[in-house]
Amino acid sequence: MSNQVQQQQPPRTANGEVNLNELLQQMTLDEKIAQLIQLAVPFYEGAGEGQITGPMESLGIAEETVHNSGSVLGMAGAQDVINVQTAHLKNNRHGIPLLMMADIVHGFKTIFPVPLAIGCSWDMELAEKSAAVAAKEAAVSGVHVTFAPMVDLVRDPRWGRVVEATGEDPYLNAEFAKAFVRGFQGKDLAGDMDKVAACVKHFAAYGAAEAGRDYNTVDLSDRQMREFYLPAYKAALDEGCEMVMTSFNTVDGIPATGNAKLMRKLLREEWGFDGILISDWGAVKELINHGIAADESEAALKALKAGVDIEMMTACYVKNLAELVERSEVDEALIDEAVLRILMLKQKLGLFENPFRAANPELEREVVFCEEHKEAARALAVKSCVLLKNEGVLPLRSDAKLALIGPFATNGDVLGPWSWTGSKDDAITLEAGMKAKLTADAKLSVAEGCGILEAGTEAQWEQVLAAAQEADIIVLALGEHSDMNGEAASRADIRLPQAQLELVRKVKALNKPIAVVLFNGRPLDLHGVIDEADAILEAWYPGSQAGHAVADLLFGDANPSGRLTMSFPHSVGQVPVYYNAYNTGRPQGAPDAQVRYVSQFIDIPNEPLLPFGFGLSYSDFAYGEAELSADLMTEAAPITVSVTVTNKGNVAGVETVQLYVRDISGEVVRPVKELKDYRQICLQPGERAEVSFVLSEQQLRYYHSDLTHASDSGAFVAFVGPNSKTNTALPFRLVKG
Amino acid sequence: MSNQVQQQQPPRTANGEVNLNELLQQMTLDEKIAQLIQLAVPFYEGAGEGQITGPMESLGIAEETVHNSGSVLGMAGAQDVINVQTAHLKNNRHGIPLLMMADIVHGFKTIFPVPLAIGCSWDMELAEKSAAVAAKEAAVSGVHVTFAPMVDLVRDPRWGRVVEATGEDPYLNAEFAKAFVRGFQGKDLAGDMDKVAACVKHFAAYGAAEAGRDYNTVDLSDRQMREFYLPAYKAALDEGCEMVMTSFNTVDGIPATGNAKLMRKLLREEWGFDGILISDWGAVKELINHGIAADESEAALKALKAGVDIEMMTACYVKNLAELVERSEVDEALIDEAVLRILMLKQKLGLFENPFRAANPELEREVVFCEEHKEAARALAVKSCVLLKNEGVLPLRSDAKLALIGPFATNGDVLGPWSWTGSKDDAITLEAGMKAKLTADAKLSVAEGCGILEAGTEAQWEQVLAAAQEADIIVLALGEHSDMNGEAASRADIRLPQAQLELVRKVKALNKPIAVVLFNGRPLDLHGVIDEADAILEAWYPGSQAGHAVADLLFGDANPSGRLTMSFPHSVGQVPVYYNAYNTGRPQGAPDAQVRYVSQFIDIPNEPLLPFGFGLSYSDFAYGEAELSADLMTEAAPITVSVTVTNKGNVAGVETVQLYVRDISGEVVRPVKELKDYRQICLQPGERAEVSFVLSEQQLRYYHSDLTHASDSGAFVAFVGPNSKTNTALPFRLVKG
Repeated sequence: MSNQVQQQQPPRTANGEVNLNELLQQMTLDEKIAQLIQLAVPFYEGAGEGQITGPMESLGIAEETVHNSGSVLGMAGAQDVINVQTAHLKNNRHGIPLLMMADIVHGFKTIFPVPLAIGCSWDMELAEKSAAVAAKEAAVSGVHVTFAPMVDLVRDPRWGRVVEATGEDPYLNAEFAKAFVRGFQGKDLAGDMDKVAACVKHFAAYGAAEAGRDYNTVDLSDRQMREFYLPAYKAALDEGCEMVMTSFNTVDGIPATGNAKLMRKLLREEWGFDGILISDWGAVKELINHGIAADESEAALKALKAGVDIEMMTACYVKNLAELVERSEVDEALIDEAVLRILMLKQKLGLFENPFRAANPELEREVVFCEEHKEAARALAVKSCVLLKNEGVLPLRSDAKLALIGPFATNGDVLGPWSWTGSKDDAITLEAGMKAKLTADAKLSVAEGCGILEAGTEAQWEQVLAAAQEADIIVLALGEHSDMNGEAASRADIRLPQAQLELVRKVKALNKPIAVVLFNGRPLDLHGVIDEADAILEAWYPGSQAGHAVADLLFGDANPSGRLTMSFPHSVGQVPVYYNAYNTGRPQGAPDAQVRYVSQFIDIPNEPLLPFGFGLSYSDFAYGEAELSADLMTEAAPITVSVTVTNKGNVAGVETVQLYVRDISGEVVRPVKELKDYRQICLQPGERAEVSFVLSEQQLRYYHSDLTHASDSGAFVAFVGPNSKTNTALPFRLVKG
Repeated sequence: MSNQVQQQQPPRTANGEVNLNELLQQMTLDEKIAQLIQLAVPFYEGAGEGQITGPMESLGIAEETVHNSGSVLGMAGAQDVINVQTAHLKNNRHGIPLLMMADIVHGFKTIFPVPLAIGCSWDMELAEKSAAVAAKEAAVSGVHVTFAPMVDLVRDPRWGRVVEATGEDPYLNAEFAKAFVRGFQGKDLAGDMDKVAACVKHFAAYGAAEAGRDYNTVDLSDRQMREFYLPAYKAALDEGCEMVMTSFNTVDGIPATGNAKLMRKLLREEWGFDGILISDWGAVKELINHGIAADESEAALKALKAGVDIEMMTACYVKNLAELVERSEVDEALIDEAVLRILMLKQKLGLFENPFRAANPELEREVVFCEEHKEAARALAVKSCVLLKNEGVLPLRSDAKLALIGPFATNGDVLGPWSWTGSKDDAITLEAGMKAKLTADAKLSVAEGCGILEAGTEAQWEQVLAAAQEADIIVLALGEHSDMNGEAASRADIRLPQAQLELVRKVKALNKPIAVVLFNGRPLDLHGVIDEADAILEAWYPGSQAGHAVADLLFGDANPSGRLTMSFPHSVGQVPVYYNAYNTGRPQGAPDAQVRYVSQFIDIPNEPLLPFGFGLSYSDFAYGEAELSADLMTEAAPITVSVTVTNKGNVAGVETVQLYVRDISGEVVRPVKELKDYRQICLQPGERAEVSFVLSEQQLRYYHSDLTHASDSGAFVAFVGPNSKTNTALPFRLVKG
């Protein structure tokens, strides 16, 4: 395809490593700038679906640029990676290998539950394991960097990408951020070939899009940013996350990708991040649409000055930076800095020595989607489902007569968005999962009833009637198309689709017990389902092992233990509603509150339909009286919060004991509750355990009006309980020296 | 009731004025502090409904405090004012008169349309006139200060108080703020007895309550505040508004009422406001609920330090300031400053000389609710209604056979919130208004059909059928209870109540033309009405002359000319939606936009159902090609935007020609359109007029990231047209020297 270039080996230091600074000096300005572009697979020779010329033309770049480019987007598959890398090294005169990057978000071929579901597991070990499995499968398939974790804090269920987040809590999101980074990168990214570099995204506050409409404006005070939105990104970086991706939204009026205050000042200077900062897809050029750049040249100028090293999928850098350097509008040192960061990651990953790294077609067949990985996915799926209601219907008996009805009865669309490397055909459907549980004398009849969006036909209703006729219990499998979630999938109506609500209404009229299983990616307005159902299991998108995991729970082979990490609103008109909100001056239910003049809606409650932290179990956990070790805390002397929990049920179960704190009076307003810690305990029937939390002054710090992070002496209340509605108030005071 | 105090005349200066500084020196600390409390009428001797002891006990204050207090809340009625003032002056040893304050928002006894409706008139003269009428009626009834105008910018129709605002546009809101202040205060507040002092509210950004839930948290960047929310308050002050009221909400984490940055630094220091700052009802004590004050003492401390002069309806000041001064936590000079401001307004209003000011029971009977005032209210109501749809049904013929159906057919609940001084019994109902139009051979049958909230009964439906039987056209009068709007009346569901939607559905089945008249206080989701109706007239709450004004329009004696100043959302799931939003990086409809990956909802359009600036007419206005005088603007050389408008219809009508500008590329993101100017022109049938706007560099200024207010050289687009959807783009450049 191209003329053979004059090859030269990269310069080496005395110890044999590539001398990156010298290499940088040998590179022409154009070669350096080309390192800063990231193009998708079709631009590259060797990839199966290579199309090369077309894409280059549409982007207006030369073949030369591709040969000198630094990284590839969406690359996966061991043989393809080897082919592309091999071809690339032939064409690149310095022998600089490509970084292979891809969105490996919740599993590679073995698909784990979607991140919002993982959030509901409150299980950092399994979350880390899921990332480790994804890393291992991705690594052997030739991936070097994954665009994960996504740690955006979310409060608006209209936004499709809530499915990619772990929820509305900054503490929990930060814990998950760390767990995922540990899972992807491990302790020795350089030496451990099962690991990939992580890229935390989307920096910053992408989750606060106005009206929940994807890519929309974000406007927050600096304090809100620091208090709620920034901690999870920071946690990922503290855990050693190698890369950061910019977000599509504005931050205080300036798109993140061109926001020097956010990137240079906060991320690089204040936080000391020295890794690669990559734009999201097309986000550099989008500075023009945003209206802060007049043309591609200004977009390149602003993005580079803001600190963006790699421009993804547009060519503002390669088409303009050289001229900007020539005109002295850009200091070449900025470009050198960006290139060096890219070269450093390549060196860290050992690509100069082994440009294929872990890519291995044979091993790939062994490792990817292996039984061990599927078991891990099943285990996490079991822990991610949340039992929202259960009036004695669940668990099902394995010899029961059941009707499985609904558009998700036999549907493989249970992987959720960002599972492009997985396959729906490999997913275990609910029908398959349930069938595997049934004894010989059981009966399972199946009927679709309606489409996910398409109203049920008469014929479908006949099938429902036939299926339901002999059944003692109806399992209704409902939900959203996975395409109704994820990027650019904002919904203004967050109910189940009308076709399914109609199905619920008709099935309800059959007067049989109904257990609903939901496959969806956002908190829904459950009116039209929650009153009609006798039980509801929120399964989210459970991944490759969906049917098995859900069946484990439905039949009681596992005991539901998931807890919501995002409030389920009463209706879309209540959005945003989240547990860690501020009080108002006129809170509902205050002792001296008037009837009318309090902060409320006149047509719905203030409280969400289902609160943060909520989830049921087949066990029955009783809380004893919680106690404080002291009612006075000092900086030197933390206090301990203890509570005894007893499993009064008949089956073993996992309880998530949650510790919240309220700061009664601050320099600025403080949330009515903040999750500070939690513990998952497994109790046998009748077993009892004491759970203790050490609570220290550090955990009481918050951002003041001048953005200092500190605690204040004063009154606080601790709460311990099974979810955020707990009202076992334990007052204490902090007295600072 | 109390012992006679030792009276002393206030000290005078050489020219006979009260010497306020000397008076201040004669006052004890307790007397000074008492000036800072504002109590409602029941605390005062002389008022009709005096209850005195009870309220004082519940507040924990002494009679002495009431005798030394500075102002009264909710006082109106000439004789009552005279009685209370007389009694007060006997009890106050310095002879310091009370300031009588009250919420006179959109009329006193003559009720004008609600402010959101006034906004839709785009008529500054009539708006000013409405405030002048209200001032005149209030003044003669003894009121000195009105708690108006309310100028909060609003974007969320769930919030009940959108009814009190003029809309979503900062420019228009600022123009209305000035008009109202001019109307209330006139040019010579001191000398003109028909005037009252104005108090602009609620400072600041009360309209941005999260989820539209009243009193809820507000979180905005400083730049958003300045760009959108602050201009209207500033405009009121520039017009000489005497007072400012704090808002209930937080501003950057600190409730406005305790927010020194907002009040001391911005309002007083930066803007130089030296008038009285009053808390909203109970807002000082609410600092405790907000969680920035541990007790009433800290609440008093924070509010006073923040600059609040008068504490409304709680007693944190009177119970704590003396001790705070004693403990040196409060400098007495702060108290002196506040008292002096209060005394200065009393002096300005001439109360030391004439403590009753314009209060005059005889004149009151003449002036209040006089015919001239009613005519003014009718004229403004006519201009406030907005014709949303008209498929040839309107105007009605005065000899038509009509059925008037719906819960607002004969309902006097057409004054809207904040009309406590008016009376529903005096309001002209739609039935009465329509009857006054009909010729002898016409027919009007009336049926309620259902309640505002209560489902229609069988009997009611029979009446509907009977009424509709002989009718050629059905007029459906629908809407919200006025209590479903206003303070603490947030709705999560912004459709018409179900009972009325059901009525629409049933009436639609009668297959007769339907003209809907809406009486409501917020933009509604009109699904269930807009497709069913052949015409819709949005009447809002038109005030005392409601029926006449609406009938004027329905029968074509007047031509609808109102234009929406708040977008009507497609559904509540689209909220907030407003015309002057920022572009995103992935706007819908951009030339290179992908199908899926743009900023959009997957289930509804991005566009509101009805846009800002929209409204129909019985005339048909045709726009010629708009022109610019030059495509280059400099600071010295403004440009002119001109367009020819022709009335191609058969009746004279008023067209509101609107000028919008878009800044193509800024230092920060800029709205897709901003209203810069408009002109209302009245054209006879066939008449044509050229409308010209001078557009200058000053109008292109905006708040940069460092909060400087300036324009930038670069590309702009001007748009001229009948509403904010106009796309007659006229590009020009600003070149700065």
